[in-house]
Amino acid sequence: MSKIFTNELIKKLSLLNTEKMYLNDFLHTWDKTDQELSAIYTVATILEEMRKDNISPKVFDSGLGISLFRDNSTRTRFSFASACNLLGLEVQDLDEGKSQVAHGETVRETANMVSFMADIIGIRDDMYIGKGHAYMKEVAESIEAGHQEGVLEQRPTVVNLQCDVDHPTQSMSDMLHIINTFGGVENLKGKKIAMTWAYSPSYGKPLSVPQGIIGLMTRFGMDVSLAHPEGYEVMPEVEEIARLNAQASGGSFTKAASMADAFADADIVYPKSWAPFVAMEKRTELYGNGDDAGIKALEKELLAQNALHKDWECTEDLMTKTKNGKALYMHCLPADITGVSCDEGEVAASVFDRYRVPLYKEASYKPYIIAAMIFLSKFKNPSDTFKTLMDQETSRIL
Amino acid sequence: MSKIFTNELIKKLSLLNTEKMYLNDFLHTWDKTDQELSAIYTVATILEEMRKDNISPKVFDSGLGISLFRDNSTRTRFSFASACNLLGLEVQDLDEGKSQVAHGETVRETANMVSFMADIIGIRDDMYIGKGHAYMKEVAESIEAGHQEGVLEQRPTVVNLQCDVDHPTQSMSDMLHIINTFGGVENLKGKKIAMTWAYSPSYGKPLSVPQGIIGLMTRFGMDVSLAHPEGYEVMPEVEEIARLNAQASGGSFTKAASMADAFADADIVYPKSWAPFVAMEKRTELYGNGDDAGIKALEKELLAQNALHKDWECTEDLMTKTKNGKALYMHCLPADITGVSCDEGEVAASVFDRYRVPLYKEASYKPYIIAAMIFLSKFKNPSDTFKTLMDQETSRIL
Amino acid sequence: MSKIFTNELIKKLSLLNTEKMYLNDFLHTWDKTDQELSAIYTVATILEEMRKDNISPKVFDSGLGISLFRDNSTRTRFSFASACNLLGLEVQDLDEGKSQVAHGETVRETANMVSFMADIIGIRDDMYIGKGHAYMKEVAESIEAGHQEGVLEQRPTVVNLQCDVDHPTQSMSDMLHIINTFGGVENLKGKKIAMTWAYSPSYGKPLSVPQGIIGLMTRFGMDVSLAHPEGYEVMPEVEEIARLNAQASGGSFTKAASMADAFADADIVYPKSWAPFVAMEKRTELYGNGDDAGIKALEKELLAQNALHKDWECTEDLMTKTKNGKALYMHCLPADITGVSCDEGEVAASVFDRYRVPLYKEASYKPYIIAAMIFLSKFKNPSDTFKTLMDQETSRIL
Repeated sequence: MSKIFTNELIKKLSLLNTEKMYLNDFLHTWDKTDQELSAIYTVATILEEMRKDNISPKVFDSGLGISLFRDNSTRTRFSFASACNLLGLEVQDLDEGKSQVAHGETVRETANMVSFMADIIGIRDDMYIGKGHAYMKEVAESIEAGHQEGVLEQRPTVVNLQCDVDHPTQSMSDMLHIINTFGGVENLKGKKIAMTWAYSPSYGKPLSVPQGIIGLMTRFGMDVSLAHPEGYEVMPEVEEIARLNAQASGGSFTKAASMADAFADADIVYPKSWAPFVAMEKRTELYGNGDDAGIKALEKELLAQNALHKDWECTEDLMTKTKNGKALYMHCLPADITGVSCDEGEVAASVFDRYRVPLYKEASYKPYIIAAMIFLSKFKNPSDTFKTLMDQETSRIL
Repeated sequence: MSKIFTNELIKKLSLLNTEKMYLNDFLHTWDKTDQELSAIYTVATILEEMRKDNISPKVFDSGLGISLFRDNSTRTRFSFASACNLLGLEVQDLDEGKSQVAHGETVRETANMVSFMADIIGIRDDMYIGKGHAYMKEVAESIEAGHQEGVLEQRPTVVNLQCDVDHPTQSMSDMLHIINTFGGVENLKGKKIAMTWAYSPSYGKPLSVPQGIIGLMTRFGMDVSLAHPEGYEVMPEVEEIARLNAQASGGSFTKAASMADAFADADIVYPKSWAPFVAMEKRTELYGNGDDAGIKALEKELLAQNALHKDWECTEDLMTKTKNGKALYMHCLPADITGVSCDEGEVAASVFDRYRVPLYKEASYKPYIIAAMIFLSKFKNPSDTFKTLMDQETSRIL
Repeated sequence: MSKIFTNELIKKLSLLNTEKMYLNDFLHTWDKTDQELSAIYTVATILEEMRKDNISPKVFDSGLGISLFRDNSTRTRFSFASACNLLGLEVQDLDEGKSQVAHGETVRETANMVSFMADIIGIRDDMYIGKGHAYMKEVAESIEAGHQEGVLEQRPTVVNLQCDVDHPTQSMSDMLHIINTFGGVENLKGKKIAMTWAYSPSYGKPLSVPQGIIGLMTRFGMDVSLAHPEGYEVMPEVEEIARLNAQASGGSFTKAASMADAFADADIVYPKSWAPFVAMEKRTELYGNGDDAGIKALEKELLAQNALHKDWECTEDLMTKTKNGKALYMHCLPADITGVSCDEGEVAASVFDRYRVPLYKEASYKPYIIAAMIFLSKFKNPSDTFKTLMDQETSRIL
């Protein structure tokens, strides 16, 4: 907690090219340059330091942050609300209902109608494969057009709070946790991270977490190992992105046959359940047809399929296979903890418990990551804006 | 976007008598003088200009804007939230449930209980004929009494966000759109506007839109032509208001037998579905008795009645009958667009599409109109307040 | 409304020891010293005076006030929202559902996940005997641990908005009403207050109101008389607290056999329905077992039990037994008013009506009491903070 540190970060930020982030959306991490990602971490840390020093980073005197969640969400909702509030935006929920996915004219009209005084639109739409990202693009294009056509005097920017393809606010928070744990991004080269499937007695968990992880972690020269049972493949296009990232960063992206293989000598493990891609495609179709019986049958089938892989659990025994038996255990929370939140789950209670505090810390970055995404989309010269804020030195609490 | 223009508007505002608006409600446009309406447009435009110039018009350091909606509403909700947020009020929803219309002691008590720190109460209650306006009056009288009795240290003001009789925030936004389209209120004398019924495959759309339009547009020397199929009469007392307005303003209020007659040589057309008044009265009674079967039967009957008038559609052919074939097409949105949102509806897709941008623009005024209503009910010398704000020159975004 | 009065209160506040309130929760009034309670009244009154003088007491430039309500609540919700808004906090609702009472790991995790940028957590959990207070303690301990472990950079404080044991924001508002009615706390010695059960055609009203009243009012040297039909006993541990309080304050705590006995010569009467403790214990168990049939049977039984005591009504006749027939009638609202909100209820319509304005006034203190609880938990030297605010003299409305 020193303003000297904050000012150093502001100087660092001034050297990063963030020009294209201005008035732009944050949909996938792989749309962004390394410098842009670095700017996100830097701004997130500046905001965190300012808050610790009781300096308010309120940059909006008024303005709305619209939240559009297809699914119930306490954690993401609070992270988004916290980020908006910190910067001075008031959250206004746009509740379109879970199942009704609007299209075409309706999306365009609604997107414009709610945006007359909106600065940010945060969208979480992870339920339907092939729909979430497409919807966010449609909203973004609608408001871009609205701005060009003179309907919207300013252009709200869209933040992806989780789609079917990527979960950038999660993966970026995870990454900031890794950076802080390993003492800097420069220490990550050659570190091994195991992103693995894990058993859960529930079905339909989104693929965007593992996809987000392999799509981001491959950019830092790390050895990223993906493991899952047969049938739980992630989107091939995201695997391809991971492969290309690894080539460019001097790291590697490999697929392991088992949790044990992936965990072997790993510095970081991220065991987490997700649904089979094919099943999610089928589910999207069933929902589209309103086929309730089909959905129920599919759910039953999925639970049975999951149950074949109960050995995919992050146990103490498996943890001993990791680097010095001390890999950093990660999870996006909430986890299915064996004997705690379910009979058999993703992780042994003793493993989870040993990492509980780091896991909470991992989650704590999300409001700052979201705030950083908002900040960088709204200020052309973000380091200048921070200088003004530091000079102003308004107390957050009097 | 020039502060010179804003300052001129502020000067203009200083010449208007807005004294009676101070600490007063906005329930019907016909309760207000011409100068008061002019003040609303002026303040709305000042607020819009200030926002474009990034000057914050935040006048409340804290305070609540209570929203009380009987019906689901995305657009009005966002307009009200935007207006409140722009001025510094936080919205707090009072959800009394849709069907439970409270009376007497309950209204008085609730109105006082929520108002201890409220500055504004925005109410939308358009579902039941004979109830919405009465309810707003009851709330207004309750808080007026609460203030007189020393319970409320300040008197929140009520803004009608749509009742059974009038829809002032809609009609005023529409009017501001007309003023801006025709280059000033002074150009409206002799212009013809057609407010007509249109077919929709839904029932029960409120009458307050056409009523609001004929009750307001007749005040500017325009020729207002109302057309609808037999059985779709609007409230006779509002027609009477329109007639008196037209006499006073040197315009006219006439009723046409068909859409084509109304459209003939019109400068502006506003084709829009609404429910038969008599049916709405019946529905109010059925709801009051909790007669679900009766309601369902009535709905079926209404849909059948509507279906007799499918020829009441705003087609390209009908548009050619308007002044130079180029009348301004208006709608409060969302519209029932033939082939887009329904098979057969209020308007042809090509007509709607040609006017899409102006329609969005029309809607964009509503947050400013609501903010103007709030502003004028809270400041005794609004032009002085604006001068202070312009001198302060606080940035909305840093 | 004079700043001289406000400044005197600030001076008074500076003499009170509020050190232990700093960063601490407000769960029960009996956890707090007399000086601490006095500080709450003083701060509440300072805030009220500042608002009347249009001086903003906004102390947070940003921050969240989390509301967690197990039950629907309009009044408490608005009181909490008003208090948060006045001080600069934005309310964010945490809706965990009514019946799902989370435990252990889930509580700990959720409490931390929502608290990264939260300053206050307001909880209302009054439905289940033996659960509400325990839950609040669990939340408080979770965030305290989160703060110690470095997860939360600041420690949000918990305000009890009603639990199964106490209802401090209600009893403190009631007390402030009494203080103001009788011209100061120094005039309360020897005054008699009757806290009595009253008939209501509903079941399951919480015991925390009578418990809160006897737990607080016994601290001011008053004679507190509790009366209820057999079977409607309150928690024995709270009666014990009342007894000890009365001893220490030089007042008395007695139990009367009837409403008439309790009312005899009373200066204040507080007739109000509540559920039998034993029945509430049973209900908690039935809810825990998901025994819907059992719950329904219990409800029927409770209504029948209540109906045996319809003579427990605050009638005009009973009011004549009070001191000069002019006792102050109090209620936490809404009341069951005979012939108004029900056929037979807690109070005669004419009694209620005569006291309507004071009853509304009584309720009006709650937002200020809650704001005072927040304020004193956030500022180490609250009188210094108020001095700064008075010097700043920011207008609440421009």
